[in-house]
Amino acid sequence: MKEVSVGMDIGGTNIAYGLVDRSGNVLFSDSVPTATFKSADICVTQMSEKINLAVKSLNDVKLIGIGIGAPNGNYYNGTIEYAPNLKWQGVIRLKEMFGKNFLSLPVIVTNDANAATIGEMIYGGAKGMNNFILITLGTGLGSGIVANGKMIYGHDGFAGEIGHTFVYLNDGRECGCGRKGCLETYCSATGIKRTVFELLGNSIEASELRNISFNDLTAAMISNAAKNGDKIALRAFDITGRILGIKLADSVAHTSPEAIFLFGGLANAGELIFEPTRKYFEENVLNIFKNKVKILPSELNETNGAILGSAALVWKEIN
Amino acid sequence: MKEVSVGMDIGGTNIAYGLVDRSGNVLFSDSVPTATFKSADICVTQMSEKINLAVKSLNDVKLIGIGIGAPNGNYYNGTIEYAPNLKWQGVIRLKEMFGKNFLSLPVIVTNDANAATIGEMIYGGAKGMNNFILITLGTGLGSGIVANGKMIYGHDGFAGEIGHTFVYLNDGRECGCGRKGCLETYCSATGIKRTVFELLGNSIEASELRNISFNDLTAAMISNAAKNGDKIALRAFDITGRILGIKLADSVAHTSPEAIFLFGGLANAGELIFEPTRKYFEENVLNIFKNKVKILPSELNETNGAILGSAALVWKEIN
Repeated sequence: MKEVSVGMDIGGTNIAYGLVDRSGNVLFSDSVPTATFKSADICVTQMSEKINLAVKSLNDVKLIGIGIGAPNGNYYNGTIEYAPNLKWQGVIRLKEMFGKNFLSLPVIVTNDANAATIGEMIYGGAKGMNNFILITLGTGLGSGIVANGKMIYGHDGFAGEIGHTFVYLNDGRECGCGRKGCLETYCSATGIKRTVFELLGNSIEASELRNISFNDLTAAMISNAAKNGDKIALRAFDITGRILGIKLADSVAHTSPEAIFLFGGLANAGELIFEPTRKYFEENVLNIFKNKVKILPSELNETNGAILGSAALVWKEIN
Repeated sequence: MKEVSVGMDIGGTNIAYGLVDRSGNVLFSDSVPTATFKSADICVTQMSEKINLAVKSLNDVKLIGIGIGAPNGNYYNGTIEYAPNLKWQGVIRLKEMFGKNFLSLPVIVTNDANAATIGEMIYGGAKGMNNFILITLGTGLGSGIVANGKMIYGHDGFAGEIGHTFVYLNDGRECGCGRKGCLETYCSATGIKRTVFELLGNSIEASELRNISFNDLTAAMISNAAKNGDKIALRAFDITGRILGIKLADSVAHTSPEAIFLFGGLANAGELIFEPTRKYFEENVLNIFKNKVKILPSELNETNGAILGSAALVWKEIN
């Protein structure tokens, strides 16, 4: 009988879930719009049924635990706490709620970036690394930090918020967190859009991006424009990589990782973002860390990465 | 027979050493000018003799190990590597060298701030804390980070260089590290001096500090002037606390500690530095961390702190 864990990624738009074996094979996967569920209670009831059906649909598997990645997910409390991009309000006791439907199985909750980090450690490029950082460059900038072989959850379970460190001291771009100058307002899929729009305003350079509204523009469009030689788009990648590279030097000064992995949305732009990030990182990092820290693409693909990461929470806990 | 460990703090000016029991009692202590020793070899030979004499001078004690805190001390390699403020050049294999004189005893080397951090954990205010940061505010700004109950040495043994994170992105004040805008150029005994001198240049405010040269000015003088109501000095503490508070918010976003301890030189100014640091920290830290993180004075006194911290390395390793 093969052992499998559930990996569930709760996002503002979709809930992706799957069954994953110890080697990282996704034996089943599916996705449901988050808006399907009017309350967290209904979500837990129906997702529990879906999990049971999925387990039955596979021959001869044994469920050994449930791993959940969710915005503002808290590892210690097993909760989602005041997630700004979920409609369910307040504190949601996910671990307790799923625990009632899956008695005696471990239920592990953390935020989506931490789940991706554990996924990288168990199934991806960080196998065997004791000190590394993973950065997710999506709508925002999420991060997970591993030191001494262990995920850093911190005193309260909320460690790893590198997206909310300051590029400028509470000055600069407005952030969704209520402050100004946060790294994610510059370095994320949304951040590079904002940079493009500033450049379009500041310069008279021709650009194919001048025909696209802010709401329609995506990181992929900026990436395509850059590949076509669009100067605004190229400039935006250089600026984004410069800020990211310099701020990663600050993170390295904290925990001295062996590698930093970039995952998701903007990381898919490949060398367009990796080349300037590496260049400015090396130019600006403290001497003792020069030519030591690898800046690498995540080895998890984005489609299954979130499911793998959440499922990996269970395997990490059991090991 | 009472067990004792050696705590040795190698500084640019003095080498302080002592014998410390498990409870943190300093049973013997002494200090030698670092310039006494023309080479690292001579230093190790003579310090080994001094340690043996000290052990003999106490009745009935057994030496169980040697802990050394030194600038650019590397935990993994047991070395001092290219320390800018020591006259001994290159890589000094301290662990190997002392090991020859004290066969079978553990010799543990780390940098001075990490040693102070272990000291705080074993003997000071961080007893029982699994996640905390210690900041030393001396000539520079040193730091040690503990997460999941363990010191973060990082991939290469050089983690915890918060003094070399950027206040401005490689812009602003020149730093001894060759870059610009490092935190320690603003927040340290030297940093507040630099701020005072900028303020003296920028303003026409009367100040008792106008009679003192840069080389003569100390953090203690600035502290005394502030206590006398000197507006330049008070302003300098406010600016220093603002930058420190905001940058500590960045560190908290990395590892979410329970507390941050301030140790040494500038921390001795008491509320003059703690009050603005706490105020600006709370004003600027990410919402989820507000009113959670204690900013506290170190509970180790400066005289014995360095010896205790280095000695604690041994007890931590044995436990």
